[in-house]
Amino acid sequence: MASTVGQVIKCKAAVCWGAGESLKIEEVEVAPPKAHEVRIKILHTGICHTDEYTRSGKDSEGLFPVILGHEGGGIVESIGEGVTSVAPGDCVIPLYTAECRECKFCKSGKTNLCGKVRSTQGQGLMPDSTSRFTCRGQPVHHFMGTSTFSQYTVVADVSVVAVNKTAPLDKVCLLGCGITTAWGAVVKQPGIKDSTVAVFGCGAIGLGVISTAAVVGASRIIAVDINSGKKDWALKMGATEFVNPTELPGGRRIQDHLVEITDGGFDFTFDATGNVQVMRVALEACHKGWGVSTIIGVAAAGQEIATRPFQLVTGRTWRGTAFGGVKGRTELPGLVEDYLNGKLKIDEYVTHHRKFEEINEGFHDMHRGDCIRCVVDMS
Amino acid sequence: MASTVGQVIKCKAAVCWGAGESLKIEEVEVAPPKAHEVRIKILHTGICHTDEYTRSGKDSEGLFPVILGHEGGGIVESIGEGVTSVAPGDCVIPLYTAECRECKFCKSGKTNLCGKVRSTQGQGLMPDSTSRFTCRGQPVHHFMGTSTFSQYTVVADVSVVAVNKTAPLDKVCLLGCGITTAWGAVVKQPGIKDSTVAVFGCGAIGLGVISTAAVVGASRIIAVDINSGKKDWALKMGATEFVNPTELPGGRRIQDHLVEITDGGFDFTFDATGNVQVMRVALEACHKGWGVSTIIGVAAAGQEIATRPFQLVTGRTWRGTAFGGVKGRTELPGLVEDYLNGKLKIDEYVTHHRKFEEINEGFHDMHRGDCIRCVVDMS
Repeated sequence: MASTVGQVIKCKAAVCWGAGESLKIEEVEVAPPKAHEVRIKILHTGICHTDEYTRSGKDSEGLFPVILGHEGGGIVESIGEGVTSVAPGDCVIPLYTAECRECKFCKSGKTNLCGKVRSTQGQGLMPDSTSRFTCRGQPVHHFMGTSTFSQYTVVADVSVVAVNKTAPLDKVCLLGCGITTAWGAVVKQPGIKDSTVAVFGCGAIGLGVISTAAVVGASRIIAVDINSGKKDWALKMGATEFVNPTELPGGRRIQDHLVEITDGGFDFTFDATGNVQVMRVALEACHKGWGVSTIIGVAAAGQEIATRPFQLVTGRTWRGTAFGGVKGRTELPGLVEDYLNGKLKIDEYVTHHRKFEEINEGFHDMHRGDCIRCVVDMS
Repeated sequence: MASTVGQVIKCKAAVCWGAGESLKIEEVEVAPPKAHEVRIKILHTGICHTDEYTRSGKDSEGLFPVILGHEGGGIVESIGEGVTSVAPGDCVIPLYTAECRECKFCKSGKTNLCGKVRSTQGQGLMPDSTSRFTCRGQPVHHFMGTSTFSQYTVVADVSVVAVNKTAPLDKVCLLGCGITTAWGAVVKQPGIKDSTVAVFGCGAIGLGVISTAAVVGASRIIAVDINSGKKDWALKMGATEFVNPTELPGGRRIQDHLVEITDGGFDFTFDATGNVQVMRVALEACHKGWGVSTIIGVAAAGQEIATRPFQLVTGRTWRGTAFGGVKGRTELPGLVEDYLNGKLKIDEYVTHHRKFEEINEGFHDMHRGDCIRCVVDMS
């Protein structure tokens, strides 16, 4: 096969032409990587609620046309000038949270949020403010700096990490978002061991939080979901109890119920729903004096969280996390090793598989209660 | 003088007979302390906004008639059975945040909130669910477990601490609330040294936060107040800059201004206003990735704080503190020593003095921009 290095690659990608439209499999042209860019052959990708959020048009900052997808795995096809961190043939995971190791944020030692490509990533462009994707003669936006719903994509070199080549990409692609987010939210929160934990929402993130809290050694893990079909899932992942708020007697408030059965509330709660009302419940289910509530879910644009300040003045803490506080380039190789060594669950999350042509069906799968993650085969 | 031990004491107290009414100096009967109670001759008391909040009727949980006051200093007159922590003649400060050292909260090592007398204190009663105050033949409620606007008061033994007898009570009485709250909010927050700090509100609490942050070694302390008359106060206490939000050009949002002049926002912000809109500003003025905002002020009943969850997901933390997280019985003696050794400012806060008969004027003083604290002489 002739080398594609330096050439425009024609391949298939799922393009979303406008807010609310289904994805359309199109032939796109993918330009070669410029300096400090990496072109990747994507082999597998997960579908996440954030993709659906932008597709649906609810994200007021959504840009179209766009190639969505941010939970992928692939092989480096070629690299631009100055790229030293990955090489052609490397097995890689694109990172929507970059890690440049040079900016104020990376150097702070306090956060995984990197400032290097943030501005252009938000504009759906590469760092030089242009797109590498063309379809039907017009440029197509990148998404979250990753655009994994394309057979080839281009990312900044600070937005990709090489992992163990023996890792199955149809599994470890999920480390590109959900499972890593859940893992980090727990392991980077001191004090979980021997503590009580509530997890609101039993999707992939919530189940990941439950699983990680169990591994870390939480003494009691109560899973909360309005879908009782998630009970078995939650218990399988390590929850000690399951509560369905819609099944409480007499319309009782879920936070009151939880505070009662835990003698004052939880040491730690996690919101994995993205619902601002649930975020409030999660805070108010924390124990007075020391409870810490972490927001993981992404809320719809314009929505706000609220509570009485008394909740905080009496010792509760409200915080949040993006990508679990994980520094992707530094930490993902270790997570892949953990998976290969049986220390980190991934296989359990993959309930659905779809061919690339069926990607819209994959989005529908996601809305079904029995779907945790749908993985798309890009070949 | 005949001993008053075991006798009902008749003395003067400032009684608030109903929501919104001025205080009335009345002759009250103060019953002797029961088991694990302490009767104190109050010599001086500060007036705090929380007293005014309840007096005004804005506190929906306010109970009347009541003897307000929670920032006092006095001498133990007598003790009930089983009291071992203080003795008659001791120089003491009543504590609205008790410290029993036995409850779940005290033993947790994570909070200064004590559960021992919380329930009855909230009902305006002593732990046996009765009052020690009688006026005009009817019982009068206690307030915050302290009721320092009386020449004699009775408190639970877990709600009082003995301090150095040489300390001037007209000064160290202020350690009963404001100054201690400010001090604790800063010293119990790790990382203030060499960090940037914003303080919203330059009343006694805000100035105390500024002063403590300066002592701890904050690199930059920006004071924010809508009263420019507070600028000199703030700078005198250690602020490096002062900003009046009402003087920004073109109605610019204060959080935008602060984020700009600090290249991204503050490492730490403190709300000392009790205004829920300011609490939001304080959070949003925090630096992305690591900023921590602490609510110190007490908001009016029913009011709520709100923000976009994105503020937390991108690494800001929202927390609060009551009595600065300080354990009164354990820590106040040391604070008094710090004052006596010149390490803690108190004198600077006392801008107004009032005789007991003028206590209502003291409340008016508090609303004046030039008043930091008014101390009332109870003799």
